[in-house]
Amino acid sequence: MTQTQTSSARTSASPSAVDDLRINISRLSREIFELSEIGRKPDHHGTYRVAFSEADMQARAWMQEKISAAGLTPRMDGAGNVFGHWEYPSKRPAVLVGSHLDTVPASGPLDGALGVLGALEVARTIREAGIEPKFPLDIVGFSDEEGRFGAMFGVEAFCGLQTLETIESLRDIEGVPLMDAMRQAGLDPLKALDCQRLSNPLRAYLELHVEQGPVLESQRIAIGIVSVITGLFKWKARLIGKANHAGTTPMNLRRDAFMGLADFAHELPRILEENGSEISRATIGRVDIFPGHAHTIPEAAEFSLVVRDAEQATLDELEDAIRKALSAVARRRGLMFEFEPLSNIVPQDCDPEVRQIIERQANRLGLSHLHMPSGAGHDAQFLTQVAPTGMIFVPSRGGISHAPQEWTDLADIEKGVNLLLASTLQLMTDEGCLSR
Amino acid sequence: MTQTQTSSARTSASPSAVDDLRINISRLSREIFELSEIGRKPDHHGTYRVAFSEADMQARAWMQEKISAAGLTPRMDGAGNVFGHWEYPSKRPAVLVGSHLDTVPASGPLDGALGVLGALEVARTIREAGIEPKFPLDIVGFSDEEGRFGAMFGVEAFCGLQTLETIESLRDIEGVPLMDAMRQAGLDPLKALDCQRLSNPLRAYLELHVEQGPVLESQRIAIGIVSVITGLFKWKARLIGKANHAGTTPMNLRRDAFMGLADFAHELPRILEENGSEISRATIGRVDIFPGHAHTIPEAAEFSLVVRDAEQATLDELEDAIRKALSAVARRRGLMFEFEPLSNIVPQDCDPEVRQIIERQANRLGLSHLHMPSGAGHDAQFLTQVAPTGMIFVPSRGGISHAPQEWTDLADIEKGVNLLLASTLQLMTDEGCLSR
Repeated sequence: MTQTQTSSARTSASPSAVDDLRINISRLSREIFELSEIGRKPDHHGTYRVAFSEADMQARAWMQEKISAAGLTPRMDGAGNVFGHWEYPSKRPAVLVGSHLDTVPASGPLDGALGVLGALEVARTIREAGIEPKFPLDIVGFSDEEGRFGAMFGVEAFCGLQTLETIESLRDIEGVPLMDAMRQAGLDPLKALDCQRLSNPLRAYLELHVEQGPVLESQRIAIGIVSVITGLFKWKARLIGKANHAGTTPMNLRRDAFMGLADFAHELPRILEENGSEISRATIGRVDIFPGHAHTIPEAAEFSLVVRDAEQATLDELEDAIRKALSAVARRRGLMFEFEPLSNIVPQDCDPEVRQIIERQANRLGLSHLHMPSGAGHDAQFLTQVAPTGMIFVPSRGGISHAPQEWTDLADIEKGVNLLLASTLQLMTDEGCLSR
Repeated sequence: MTQTQTSSARTSASPSAVDDLRINISRLSREIFELSEIGRKPDHHGTYRVAFSEADMQARAWMQEKISAAGLTPRMDGAGNVFGHWEYPSKRPAVLVGSHLDTVPASGPLDGALGVLGALEVARTIREAGIEPKFPLDIVGFSDEEGRFGAMFGVEAFCGLQTLETIESLRDIEGVPLMDAMRQAGLDPLKALDCQRLSNPLRAYLELHVEQGPVLESQRIAIGIVSVITGLFKWKARLIGKANHAGTTPMNLRRDAFMGLADFAHELPRILEENGSEISRATIGRVDIFPGHAHTIPEAAEFSLVVRDAEQATLDELEDAIRKALSAVARRRGLMFEFEPLSNIVPQDCDPEVRQIIERQANRLGLSHLHMPSGAGHDAQFLTQVAPTGMIFVPSRGGISHAPQEWTDLADIEKGVNLLLASTLQLMTDEGCLSR
């Protein structure tokens, strides 16, 4: 009912009314808390909405109710992506705004959820103001952004990147096939092949997200305007030496795989300085030593290596330098060195015009801002390939993410969603703001 | 019968007969293979005679039969140590020769076994020659040298170092109490408090063992004469930083516990060069990284550190330098550093006069030899505290030990056991060879 009433009451708002439009932070924050309760395990701290779990599907049903209540038309596609369509006569390309609804295990309340609920709040605010936009608006909550099945399943399906082969072969870390998980969630996995994105091409994609890092907070800046979503390469690597008695084998006769890894790790800062940029990052996050006894010289050191940068050329140089360093360490210590590339993601630039729109609106709203790369991956990285894309970051308290302690001050959330509103509005109402 | 016959047939052998006495390598090698079959798991490669296991107790029963057959009197004490006593009227201090019968899991055939069977072969050879020694001979196969219950249970009991408290509190790595394991093996654990060593003080202790390292083989030397059994300190240490998103956290804002460990490990060679001796050894054998995800900066790095040297003063200096290095790394990387000392073993010198006896006999037999420290611990390290002690090493093929591939050429074994024979004979017949 509300939907029809609002729709029919739509009027042309004055330019100053548009400029003064602000979101309702108390309504939004209530919904953030409400959504974070879905999948919350009080005994385990944090929210568990791993893709296609019961809680994840419950959140998708809840979201569709909220979408209906806001007067938009809810829809879930074959990949589990939830949309809210502002029924509008225009056949023109729609502005898409959103993020994802799934979470990592023991998540905080904001990662993904903020972008989806922020988009809902933006749509609601625009509709309530009776503004007559020139382009339609869609909001979205993608599925499996956190990579239960290895990549970003929902947005990739939306962008037409899934194939029968991937759908049939994907398994989660415990070996559960994607097809089983989707069927259990009440979805027909083959329909993920059929996720046509909205009938028209997209005018633009906007995503609001928590920074998940310490940069904005440490510099006391309200807004990050994402310049590029960094690319990465991820290796599973192995140094292999010889197990031996740690008491009887002289230091110079050892082939100690862990000491080789330590030598290499110690070289990483130099490698980044020499071959990387100031935003290059390299992380050894997982290390397994075999046989792993205090009195035995390590025979093998297996480790993960993830290297990120905003430029593919820089990633290539870093990869080259890392190979050389590992080969040299292996030679010096009498080890063998092997690696398996697990993923290779190309850096994706955000659209310069969309970034300009966001910057202009941030200036108008008096919000301090910083153009910055995103070190984390986001749904937006796939949208860059099909639509002019922009991302807005808000500060993460303590730089914490993927943990129950994740938080952003409500005042910062309000600023971020108001900027999302202003940018969306410009994209919806100002025909000339994009040259395409 | 054989026993009594041999005993009554004993005569005084001529000095040249004594000098020409040699062990029977084919008899000994048959027994080495026979013993290695007890606890052998063909599917798992190697021998499993972990202390107080069924196979370990079976080996102890088998050993007592061999002792009887050789005309010695078998005995097992309350700690499971097996003795063979050459019944002899002399009330003088006995020469004790032996090693241990237990093994690590997946052991080779020689570690421990060679010293016990070598002692048996020495006793048998001397008895068969009808030599009239001036001092009694005992042979021994100690229990739990490999440390199922943390230290060297059998020899410590033999040296009077066990207390009711240790016996009641010791557990193996799986949490099995020593008392349960001993009872299951048919032993009364409290009797381990009552392992009086042989009624008289010992004249000397000799132990033949595989080197377990590559030094003799790489230098093509037949015999190692152990100068000192190195001491060690063993730590369980921890560097603690902060887990964070590996994509979003800039390198300079990280508190990466693994990078701290890598920095420290990289400093170890310098620390050994500056503060250690040429035989100092330092090993990081176990490493656990938390949370251990490729995309998360390591919050904690837990590791074992074992440092060995022949001089306590050097160990103290190394410990000091290591603390400083770890503190500096922790400070530099914003980490906390803590450690728990797990053991502290003081270096034990072998007796200079016993070493001289071994060297003299090696020269007489024309065996190339090297005075060298023992990097591994041995039963002998406890005997040094109660008797003039000497150890003989034979080369380990490829330096391998604690593995099914462990081996020593039979020709080398023969040399080593003949040297054990000659040294034992001198200690048993030459009253003036020791000043005490």
